[in-house]
Amino acid sequence: LSETVSREQGSSPKHQIKALAFDAYGTLFDVASVLSLCEELFPGKGSAVSQMWRAKQLEYSWLRSLMGRYENFSHVTESALVFSCNALQLSLSGRVRARLMDAYLHLTPFAEVPEALKALSSLKLAIFSNGSPQMLEAVVKNAGLTNAFTDIISVDSVKIFKPSPLAYELVVKTLGLEKSSVGFVSSNSWDALGGKSFGFRTFWINRAAAPLDELGFQPDAKLKTLAELPSLLKSQQFSV
Amino acid sequence: LSETVSREQGSSPKHQIKALAFDAYGTLFDVASVLSLCEELFPGKGSAVSQMWRAKQLEYSWLRSLMGRYENFSHVTESALVFSCNALQLSLSGRVRARLMDAYLHLTPFAEVPEALKALSSLKLAIFSNGSPQMLEAVVKNAGLTNAFTDIISVDSVKIFKPSPLAYELVVKTLGLEKSSVGFVSSNSWDALGGKSFGFRTFWINRAAAPLDELGFQPDAKLKTLAELPSLLKSQQFSV
Repeated sequence: LSETVSREQGSSPKHQIKALAFDAYGTLFDVASVLSLCEELFPGKGSAVSQMWRAKQLEYSWLRSLMGRYENFSHVTESALVFSCNALQLSLSGRVRARLMDAYLHLTPFAEVPEALKALSSLKLAIFSNGSPQMLEAVVKNAGLTNAFTDIISVDSVKIFKPSPLAYELVVKTLGLEKSSVGFVSSNSWDALGGKSFGFRTFWINRAAAPLDELGFQPDAKLKTLAELPSLLKSQQFSV
Repeated sequence: LSETVSREQGSSPKHQIKALAFDAYGTLFDVASVLSLCEELFPGKGSAVSQMWRAKQLEYSWLRSLMGRYENFSHVTESALVFSCNALQLSLSGRVRARLMDAYLHLTPFAEVPEALKALSSLKLAIFSNGSPQMLEAVVKNAGLTNAFTDIISVDSVKIFKPSPLAYELVVKTLGLEKSSVGFVSSNSWDALGGKSFGFRTFWINRAAAPLDELGFQPDAKLKTLAELPSLLKSQQFSV
């Protein structure tokens, strides 16, 4: 779209979206394989383990950030697994623990991801995740997506997890762009709203048709899958 | 105990516990009445509503703190209720919402609380809670416990929720004591560990026999109920 149209919409060219930053877990990568492995290793308890594990993984990331006691996401993920097995009275051998942690390095991207990233490749594309650099490099490489992204940005550089503005600020610094020029894409409602609170344009991928978290913000757009993103960005509202 | 004994235990008199700060919800006050009201208002769904409501209440307190978007605990509690009813597809009228919010102002103390507080009254006793000043004043007054405490301390003064060290610091400033002279009592494992990370002596009241959260800290003592606290504090370890 022309600059004239953009101005008429109240968004000057410098506020056009120039880059997209994608959350990793649950947004690009499907954690369903973790659930199946939990079910294989803890028959009948797979769903309970994986749900509590995920809830505690996030909880510990927020608590450690607030306490000023950052440890990387691999550490937090393993702590959450240990707690969950304790709480559900399941024994966790070293071998089982290693297999479950390894599953986070071999996640499948959601089906529409490779094609959507290709359709968006005129923009700068980055991953921005709580994951530790080692976790992110492995999962991206194992999914064959290394070439799709210019940057893989981990909160580990600032030692605080999302939704701290210090975490989102890292994207702006790394990409060298204004925050309003960055489109942030996340399937986690709290993460999309954290990004919005920071100042990104935000796209909430709501595959599960969940209600939005009540945190005082709205995403710029709600999408069912990433497949809707390329055409949405070409619309007048975003004028990419 | 004499100073000599204290010194032999490696804790000088200035590190003796001089005051106790108690968490409110779940520690002094039983939230079971909220569960029964949820069951009355949403038959068959009371447990689902109250569990999600509590989980989201905490989650929003952490997320808003991390986002730098503090709103008081009454606001956070109501947001969490709205989300929970949305998620469970339950309609929430203004009247029902008001009744549920009001339930937080009329919580019953756990059975052992009045006697335990009496037995501890040689120490300075305070409440330290995420609750807004209005919520705390009401619940303490309605429980007839106003005279039991010298201070009712709300994180609202610093506009950040536990487990931020800025929140725990408020106790030290209000009571005018060193952190190692304060015993912090909470039934929430993450709160007890947040207090320990800050530097309090901490007592985790584990009524539900839950596993400890995996946050890299241990409380100074684990108790089943508050009734164990007076004799524990008289033991050599704490030498009150």
